Amino acid sequence: MTEGDHDDGIDKPRARRALAYHEAWTSHDLDKAMSYIADDIACEAPAGRLQGAAAYREFMGPFVQMLTGSKLIAAFGDLQTALVMYDTETTLVKSAPGAECVTVSDGRITYSRFVFDRAPFDAARKNGG
Amino acid sequence: MTEGDHDDGIDKPRARRALAYHEAWTSHDLDKAMSYIADDIACEAPAGRLQGAAAYREFMGPFVQMLTGSKLIAAFGDLQTALVMYDTETTLVKSAPGAECVTVSDGRITYSRFVFDRAPFDAARKNGG
Repeated sequence: MTEGDHDDGIDKPRARRALAYHEAWTSHDLDKAMSYIADDIACEAPAGRLQGAAAYREFMGPFVQMLTGSKLIAAFGDLQTALVMYDTETTLVKSAPGAECVTVSDGRITYSRFVFDRAPFDAARKNGG
Repeated sequence: MTEGDHDDGIDKPRARRALAYHEAWTSHDLDKAMSYIADDIACEAPAGRLQGAAAYREFMGPFVQMLTGSKLIAAFGDLQTALVMYDTETTLVKSAPGAECVTVSDGRITYSRFVFDRAPFDAARKNGG
């Protein structure tokens, strides 16, 4: 995906903001990632609803710590929304793909819908991983 | 999302095909849904890789049978790829969001990457659901 490619659906300011956030956390820069997150973010995650940046950071922190690799599968956005899918490699699970649909307002992510499979993490933890 | 809205990223033939597939299976029309699936589809699903339309139908059939509702969260596409996120309601799990990233070739879906959380389905089955 290149800067000049206008067919990738991601050449909108809000989508680029979501991608910058993605690049920050997949580079283990949680502080930079959090700079894209609104103080009052609402996040619907597999385990339930998270409210506020502190709760969001508590959710992302342990995941970023066990992250050993990531690969963007697809990213699109329009004026309201950005949608990304990626694969991650973690110390617990070798392939843990996820998808996020975010709303960006005033340059920050105010709402996020997170989808990933908890089953392999649950299984790895059960096996003492 | 309306037909005339060119800012939604979905006004490309391949993305529209992915959306037609989505509309078919969420309407319980598995035969119509399968008409959008290539005979040699490869699908990376949470439980592993599925190869071929028969295996894909075996995977989708039981899910479509327990589907009681669905809501499209976001859909985007370009010339190569379509990415959708949706929420589903099933007899086993009240809210089971999923995301799919598909490749369309010659009018059919040839590759699909599927992300959803198996944990609540595992838990419901364990509880005799």
